[in-house]
Amino acid sequence: MATINENFLKLFNNYLFSEIARKVKAFKENHPDRNVISLGIGDVTQPLPKASVDAMARAVKDMENITTFRGYGPEHGYDFLINAIIKNDYLPHGIELSPSEVFISDGAKSDCGNIGDILSINNSVGVTDPVYPVYVDSNVISGRAGNRTNAGWSNVIYMPCNAENHFKPRIPQRHIDIIYLCFPNNPMGVVLNKEELREWVDYALENDSIILYDAAYEAYIQEEDIPHSIYEIAGAKECAIEFRSFSKTAGFTGVRCGYTIVPESLTASAPDGRRVSLNQLWNRRQCTKFNGTSYITQRGAEAIYTEQGKEQVRNTINYYMTNAMLMRNGFEELGVHVYGGENAPYLWIKTPDGISSWNFFDQMLHEANVVVTPGIGFGPSGEGYVRLTAFGHREDCEEAMKRIKQWMN
Amino acid sequence: MATINENFLKLFNNYLFSEIARKVKAFKENHPDRNVISLGIGDVTQPLPKASVDAMARAVKDMENITTFRGYGPEHGYDFLINAIIKNDYLPHGIELSPSEVFISDGAKSDCGNIGDILSINNSVGVTDPVYPVYVDSNVISGRAGNRTNAGWSNVIYMPCNAENHFKPRIPQRHIDIIYLCFPNNPMGVVLNKEELREWVDYALENDSIILYDAAYEAYIQEEDIPHSIYEIAGAKECAIEFRSFSKTAGFTGVRCGYTIVPESLTASAPDGRRVSLNQLWNRRQCTKFNGTSYITQRGAEAIYTEQGKEQVRNTINYYMTNAMLMRNGFEELGVHVYGGENAPYLWIKTPDGISSWNFFDQMLHEANVVVTPGIGFGPSGEGYVRLTAFGHREDCEEAMKRIKQWMN
Repeated sequence: MATINENFLKLFNNYLFSEIARKVKAFKENHPDRNVISLGIGDVTQPLPKASVDAMARAVKDMENITTFRGYGPEHGYDFLINAIIKNDYLPHGIELSPSEVFISDGAKSDCGNIGDILSINNSVGVTDPVYPVYVDSNVISGRAGNRTNAGWSNVIYMPCNAENHFKPRIPQRHIDIIYLCFPNNPMGVVLNKEELREWVDYALENDSIILYDAAYEAYIQEEDIPHSIYEIAGAKECAIEFRSFSKTAGFTGVRCGYTIVPESLTASAPDGRRVSLNQLWNRRQCTKFNGTSYITQRGAEAIYTEQGKEQVRNTINYYMTNAMLMRNGFEELGVHVYGGENAPYLWIKTPDGISSWNFFDQMLHEANVVVTPGIGFGPSGEGYVRLTAFGHREDCEEAMKRIKQWMN
Repeated sequence: MATINENFLKLFNNYLFSEIARKVKAFKENHPDRNVISLGIGDVTQPLPKASVDAMARAVKDMENITTFRGYGPEHGYDFLINAIIKNDYLPHGIELSPSEVFISDGAKSDCGNIGDILSINNSVGVTDPVYPVYVDSNVISGRAGNRTNAGWSNVIYMPCNAENHFKPRIPQRHIDIIYLCFPNNPMGVVLNKEELREWVDYALENDSIILYDAAYEAYIQEEDIPHSIYEIAGAKECAIEFRSFSKTAGFTGVRCGYTIVPESLTASAPDGRRVSLNQLWNRRQCTKFNGTSYITQRGAEAIYTEQGKEQVRNTINYYMTNAMLMRNGFEELGVHVYGGENAPYLWIKTPDGISSWNFFDQMLHEANVVVTPGIGFGPSGEGYVRLTAFGHREDCEEAMKRIKQWMN
C-alpha cells in the first residue's frame, strides 16, 4: 500500500495569498464598479530591460539553426552567465568566487525550497518572525520543522522582529543549526549593516551553524555600508549559502532565473564527524534532480550585465524606489508608523489604533479599494502590521495613496 | 552543529556520464587527429520547430511592453498550454483530463526527481533493471532506497529485463508500493502493448500501488496498439502519475519544459488509513517549492500543437527514426543482436562474444572512434549491452555505422 508523506497534512490548507485572492474576488463580484488597486502581492509591473529582450530574441534565433542550436546545457549553468555574475555582482565588493561556486537555477524560490535536500532533517531551524513562508513550509514538508504547537513548529526557533528591536532579529542565546536570514527583508523592508551582519557570521562560526542568506532584494540597497552579499563579511564562506534572484532586479518573475552561491570552503558534519563539502552535495543534488535553466533565459540574464542592461535595471529600480518613497511620505504625513522602503521594495506599516492585520486588510479593501498583505500571514509577530509593495505602476501608487489619505482622514 | 543529509554519502561519486566524458576526453587528448562520433548521451541535434521559435520570438517581444508584459505565472502553468496538451495529447486517445490535473514544469527530470516529496519514505520502490538512474538516485537521496547491499539498494525491488523476457519486466510476485515504469523505454528502446500495460495497472489496483509512468518518448511510437499514455488503460487514473517531456518530442532539452499528470481521482493512504488526494499534495509541493515555467518557454511549447508545429515535430521524429532504422539494419547485417529502435529513439545492442559493456565501450572508442553508453551503467542486467541513441546527425550515424562495420568485419 503506497502511503503519502504525512508532513503535508500538517500544513494549513489555505495559503496567505490564496485567502487574499478569495477575498478580493468576492469584493469585486459584489462591487463590479470599483477599481481595486493591488499593493499586495510582490510581483513586478515594469517590462524587462531592453538589453535582455534583445539578447533573448537572438538566443531564440540560435535555436532555429542547426549550427547554433543548443541542447542540454550544464546543470549548474553556462559559463557566460556565471562569469558575468562573478565579475559584476561579487568582484566589485571584493569577493572572489570560482565558477564552480555559482549554481544557476530557475529561481530563488526553487533553491530556497530545495536546499534542505542536502541537510539532515534533524537540524534545528531558525527563522525571523515574520518571515517569507517558503522557508518554514519547505521544512514542514521534509519533516524538519517537527510538529505544530501553540508556539509554532516544535523544531523551529522563531526570532521575533518588532518595533522594539527595529525589526532586526537578536542574536540567539541558544544554539541553532540552520538559520534563514533575508536582507533586504521581505516582508519588513529592513536591512542589516555590516556590523550587524558580522554578528551573525560570528555566531554561525562559533556554533558551526549554516546561514541560508536570501539576498533576492540586494539591488534595492541605496545606502553605503549595507552589505549586498553576506560574503562581504570575513568568514562567511565557511558558514553561509547565498540565494540571488533576477526576479525583482530585472523583472524576471515570469522568465525564471536565479542563482545560489555554495562556497567550496563550506562544510558540515556527517554523523561520524567527518566534514563534507556542501558544494559537492548541492552539485550532486542539482545533477540528479534538475536539468539546467533555459539557454534563452540565461542569455537574457547575461545581458543585464552589459552597460545598456545595467542602466535599464537602474532605471527600473529607481522607478520602484520612487514609488516606495511616495508611499512612505504619504503614510508619514498621515502619522502612521512606517518602516522599510528605503533600501527595499517593501513597506511595513503599523495598523492604526492597534487593529488586527486582517481587519485593516478588510477595511482597506472595502473602504479604499486597495489590497495590502496582512502581516500576520508572515508570522505571529506580524500581527498589527500590513505589507505594501512598491512594484506597482506609479499612477496606481499615487491613486492608492490618495484614497488611503481620504479614508484615514 | 549543522549536519548533512548522510544519504548523499551512499551515492557513488562518479556518474555514468561523467565517467564516459572523462574517458572520451582522455582519448581525444591522446588522439587529436581522430574525429570522435558520439552516439552516447541522449541529447538531440536537430533545431527547434520553426513554429516554436516564432512563438517564442513573439513572447520575448511581449515582455518588452508594459501592456503585454507577464510577471509571475500560475505555478502549475498557463491555461493556454494546459488546454493544448489536453486537446492534442489526450483527447485523441479518448482520455479526458481537467486542467487541474496537468502540471507544467521545467522538465520531466525535475518532476521525476521531486515527485518523491509527496510520498512517505517508507514505501518500497520497484524499478526495472536496467533503468534511468534518476529514479534510483533520487530515492537514495531521500532515504527511501535504504542501504547499499551486494544485491542493490535494500528497499528497492529490481525487475530484471533481458533477452529472455524480451526486455519487459515481469509482474512482481510480491507487493511493491511505488513502481517506476518508462515506456517507450530508456535505455532499452522497448515498448509495452495495451495488454501488457493493463497487467501493470491491474497489479497496481490490486496492491494499492502507485505507478510513476515516464512517457517522455511516447512521440516515437510508430505502431498501432502501443499506448501513448497509461490513461488509455481503464483504472489507471486511480493508480498512476504520468510524466511527459517536450525535450525529445520537440528538441526542448535546452529550453526546459515538461508536464506531469496527477489525476484528481488518485489517492494514497495516510498513516491513519485516510485516503489523501495526490493531486492536492503535488499542487501544494509545487506552490511551495516551484514558481512556474518561463512564459516564453510555455508559448514555445504551445506552438508545437499548431498544424505547422505538428508537421515540424513529425519531420524531426521521422529524421531520428530513420537514423534508428539505419543503425538497426547495420547491426542486423553484422549479425549482432539489436533491440529497440522501432518505437523509441534508443537501440540496445548485445555485445559480441559476451564481452563486458565497458570493454566494448573502450574498443568502440579506440578502434571505431564511436562513443556508446555501457549498459552496466543502467543496472546489473545491462551488463553485456550498450545503448546507442538515434539523436545524432544523419551523416554521423552513417559514418559511425561504416566504421563499426569495418571494425567488426
